[in-house]
Amino acid sequence: MTYCVGLKTHEGLVFMSDTRTNAGVDNISVFRKMHCWQKEDERVLVLLSAGNLATTQAVVSLLEERTKAPDERTPSMLETPSMYQAARLVGDTVKEVIRQSAPAGQSADAFGASFILGGQICGMEPRLFMIYPEGNFIEASADTPFFQIGETKYGKPILVRAFDTAMSFEETVKLLLVSFDSTLRSNLSVAPPIDLLYYERDSFRIGYEKRIEAEDPYMRTISEGWSQALKSAFKSLPDFTR
Amino acid sequence: MTYCVGLKTHEGLVFMSDTRTNAGVDNISVFRKMHCWQKEDERVLVLLSAGNLATTQAVVSLLEERTKAPDERTPSMLETPSMYQAARLVGDTVKEVIRQSAPAGQSADAFGASFILGGQICGMEPRLFMIYPEGNFIEASADTPFFQIGETKYGKPILVRAFDTAMSFEETVKLLLVSFDSTLRSNLSVAPPIDLLYYERDSFRIGYEKRIEAEDPYMRTISEGWSQALKSAFKSLPDFTR
Repeated sequence: MTYCVGLKTHEGLVFMSDTRTNAGVDNISVFRKMHCWQKEDERVLVLLSAGNLATTQAVVSLLEERTKAPDERTPSMLETPSMYQAARLVGDTVKEVIRQSAPAGQSADAFGASFILGGQICGMEPRLFMIYPEGNFIEASADTPFFQIGETKYGKPILVRAFDTAMSFEETVKLLLVSFDSTLRSNLSVAPPIDLLYYERDSFRIGYEKRIEAEDPYMRTISEGWSQALKSAFKSLPDFTR
Repeated sequence: MTYCVGLKTHEGLVFMSDTRTNAGVDNISVFRKMHCWQKEDERVLVLLSAGNLATTQAVVSLLEERTKAPDERTPSMLETPSMYQAARLVGDTVKEVIRQSAPAGQSADAFGASFILGGQICGMEPRLFMIYPEGNFIEASADTPFFQIGETKYGKPILVRAFDTAMSFEETVKLLLVSFDSTLRSNLSVAPPIDLLYYERDSFRIGYEKRIEAEDPYMRTISEGWSQALKSAFKSLPDFTR
């Protein structure tokens, strides 16, 4: 499994992803699930991936190759005229990879992968998309300003209840770490280190990037503090009366 | 979907279940998923069910029939010599129903159902079991004093963090309603009314029973109060610093 979240705030875009991949509980590895394309002062694109690792790596490799050999196929991630076209490019690449992986008669389910793509291209607004294994995609809106992929359920209630697009980057990271901590505690196939990336709107460069390790002091503060805070919050509610 | 929880506390057993069943979002109904067998001063057995409604109804009907016609087949739910034997009886009945539903060559997955069985028989301790669609089962322990079936993920983090077997019945109901509220908000296939049942240890009769409707004032207090309490808890944690 995997857990990745992309959020759109008034200030910009925040991305977080775990790094655990597994083929059974007895076969785990660390792989980065966050990929970035940047042309300074012109565009920043961030892609988070979940699902079959062979598929996600193939998609990223193809997107990378297109970036590096511009005469080969256009547009590349560094050349798409809009975020919408970049999402289409990712979707088309997913379809291409899955078609190649699953020849006729074989189910494509095992090769499935989903993606969150966010970023901004000069002259346009920051945008955030979720791309399905079928290659089609949806865009975040004011009503639904974030996307999750992978093991989404454990960490969703706190996002639904506490996220607000007016949050600062610092508060958003706190919220994401609470959401990740809930997930880490319940699903062994989601694990640190956790990658964090911040893109500040209209900056056209990566604003902040960090790999948060399991023993990171802030991560531990959040994890322990949240257990305590939850218990206090729970105590503050009135008990049931018969 | 469905959401049911059974917890074992020092004081006894607490059960909660929703009532929504669905065959697609355009076809929903209300069905009770909590069933009880009681022989006053001798035993109380409570069964919660999740999964294919035809299967769970068939299982409960067969268990009921056995109860009512004691010469037909023994032991019945009112006669098993122990909770362990009651869990075996439920497990065997599940296997029988699924075998009948899925003739050779057909996958049994669609007919799957899981159960939580709890109760006490005079002279023995209260016990709590989870019975799988395959008919085998596990028992709750000091390390894992509760079971969930159905849509378990949204409501699990709060149970894991806040549940303590020393909790009173009143606190346990509060906790369960927080867990149910998180689930109701995220999964349309879990819905009120919610059935609540309390069995106090060594009482050998149902201690308290209530159907909690959506507009129940305490349910609303918890739902609204928890959003507020969570936000305050979240604010109490230190923000991330770059």
